[in-house]
Amino acid sequence: MTVETQFAHFDSLSLDCGETLAPVTVAYETYGELNRDKSNAILVLHAFSGDAHAAGISHETGKPGWWDNMIGPHKAFDTTRYFVLCSNILGGCRGTTGPGSVNPATGRPYGAGFPVITVPDMVRLQKKLIDHLGIRRLLSLSGGSMGGMQALQWAVEYPEAVVSAIPIASTFRHSAQQIAFNEVGRMAVMSDPDWKGGDYYDSDPPARGLSVARMIGHITYMSDDSMREKFGRRQRPKEELSNGFSVDFEVENYLRYRGGEFVNRFDANSYLYITKAMDNFDLSNGYGSLSAALARTKARFLVISFSSDWLYPSYQSQEIVRALRGHNLDVAYCELPSNYGHDAFLIEVGEQTELVKHFLANTFKKAA
Amino acid sequence: MTVETQFAHFDSLSLDCGETLAPVTVAYETYGELNRDKSNAILVLHAFSGDAHAAGISHETGKPGWWDNMIGPHKAFDTTRYFVLCSNILGGCRGTTGPGSVNPATGRPYGAGFPVITVPDMVRLQKKLIDHLGIRRLLSLSGGSMGGMQALQWAVEYPEAVVSAIPIASTFRHSAQQIAFNEVGRMAVMSDPDWKGGDYYDSDPPARGLSVARMIGHITYMSDDSMREKFGRRQRPKEELSNGFSVDFEVENYLRYRGGEFVNRFDANSYLYITKAMDNFDLSNGYGSLSAALARTKARFLVISFSSDWLYPSYQSQEIVRALRGHNLDVAYCELPSNYGHDAFLIEVGEQTELVKHFLANTFKKAA
Repeated sequence: MTVETQFAHFDSLSLDCGETLAPVTVAYETYGELNRDKSNAILVLHAFSGDAHAAGISHETGKPGWWDNMIGPHKAFDTTRYFVLCSNILGGCRGTTGPGSVNPATGRPYGAGFPVITVPDMVRLQKKLIDHLGIRRLLSLSGGSMGGMQALQWAVEYPEAVVSAIPIASTFRHSAQQIAFNEVGRMAVMSDPDWKGGDYYDSDPPARGLSVARMIGHITYMSDDSMREKFGRRQRPKEELSNGFSVDFEVENYLRYRGGEFVNRFDANSYLYITKAMDNFDLSNGYGSLSAALARTKARFLVISFSSDWLYPSYQSQEIVRALRGHNLDVAYCELPSNYGHDAFLIEVGEQTELVKHFLANTFKKAA
Repeated sequence: MTVETQFAHFDSLSLDCGETLAPVTVAYETYGELNRDKSNAILVLHAFSGDAHAAGISHETGKPGWWDNMIGPHKAFDTTRYFVLCSNILGGCRGTTGPGSVNPATGRPYGAGFPVITVPDMVRLQKKLIDHLGIRRLLSLSGGSMGGMQALQWAVEYPEAVVSAIPIASTFRHSAQQIAFNEVGRMAVMSDPDWKGGDYYDSDPPARGLSVARMIGHITYMSDDSMREKFGRRQRPKEELSNGFSVDFEVENYLRYRGGEFVNRFDANSYLYITKAMDNFDLSNGYGSLSAALARTKARFLVISFSSDWLYPSYQSQEIVRALRGHNLDVAYCELPSNYGHDAFLIEVGEQTELVKHFLANTFKKAA
């Protein structure tokens, strides 16, 4: 199934910081067919480094989408039954307006002049897209990690538009440890002289800093167990570097490779803006408590976490589940056994598929 | 108690890499008195960023030693009974020969021309110091983290010289995850243009890279719980940085502060050499298995780990304990409950003191 990224354009978007972004473009893809009464739409929300290309084979790159194992005919998000959408988030660098976009006021990329954005801002832009497509209610929203944060924000901010939500390996707000890992990544980027205060679009990007930031990320996405299974202490063929420090272990080589690869597809300023939005996100903001925030929603929930995910540990999902149950909502929760750590939401297809498939079928039946 | 760092000088040291380092200086401190039959000496081994100043108040800096809460009159390592020594490790930057030392062949600092060093090399230099002081047997050796690795290496390499050992929060070899965290730190240092292939001693050191490396370290030394307790999501007074990215959270400020502070006391090349030595360390090297290596020792052991230490998890200490018990050795093992993560070995004084005190008293009695 070849897919093509589409673009929607809006005159402006009001932001939480008080500024207005104008104009705004959203990159998105769709899979499956919207039914006549527009009741089968599911919005899939990507994690911080993802993009609109969630499923199928990209017409442009020939590559499968980041959740292609979950979205498609007869898959978890079954495109023979549902109309699935995914859009690149605000502040991203994959087609949606972000710090690398041209600021019409200057004719040059925004860079660090891009306004501070929030997860609610991202969701507000997604709502514009959904309105633009004439969809009044989403049968479901789902995403892992920061995608789960967006799903929660949707349920609280637009209760009448959300029939159900499936936040996976997520949290209603970052812990000190999660903020700390993001902060080190930001410092790595901003410490790179090529970052130049964010104004690097005419020259080399801060590749070394962004690569280090991504290496840290990859460690936190895996688990101690999965790293042991994948690499252990397996050594590389000796390959002395010019500076005398050799890459001795496969795990070192893997991280360097993944760090370098990331630089080719991701903008350093987007890294800064999006991680800040994640850290600042707190679903209880403006409501006083998580419970008060979730009192607004009537949606059904399927909350999923993974046993070996130490970056977004199960207790964070359980906090959400407890608050939802306090309002007598229809909540299913599963901690799936997995060795894959936080990456599990992208890898553990089997059990997620069973859970999501039945949850969606039930939701569709009840909503009909 | 004011203490002064002393220095011992040796003509040369043969290294595992085949090279010979000449000359070699060792910085060390001693606390308490060596008894007449020299049977009360305890060698304390510092972790990777530590130094010889383990206890008392430094004559030079006025600062207490890194394990001052554990070493002193009537403390865990009771200096009214025992003669305690600590030396800066080979490759360090606190008085012992390392990459920042002058290479007599060139008259300039070694930099990246310093030979590759190993944990066994460090131990071989410590043995020279002990011999120099006329001590034939150590009543005990103890250290946390890389200090524990050295204690294990001593027990295997010099079985006749080791009466007992207390490895704390340690491992007989690094896991893929431990190697990965070190590798990201090394990449952060080497990505800093000020590193200049290790030849920066005439100019600014790679402060930004080393600072980022240390920030990563600090996250891994704490636990999710201890970071929540210490920082949570507590915010800083708003303080916009010139580049528009604000330090919003206390945890960000703390990490930046600790990263910056580290740069003033640690040499970036030492960081590279020592972390490589840790990653390459494998007690079973040359013996085929951990069990075969430990078959050489007759020492008594007290092995300690901490419940919330996810960098050197308890299972790593338990691997050592199992292998020791397989040889019917006298082994006590305790996993102490603590929220402090890997840092616990520096902080949890109460329970460690009880364990260490009784273990040492028994060891002394049995050895007499």
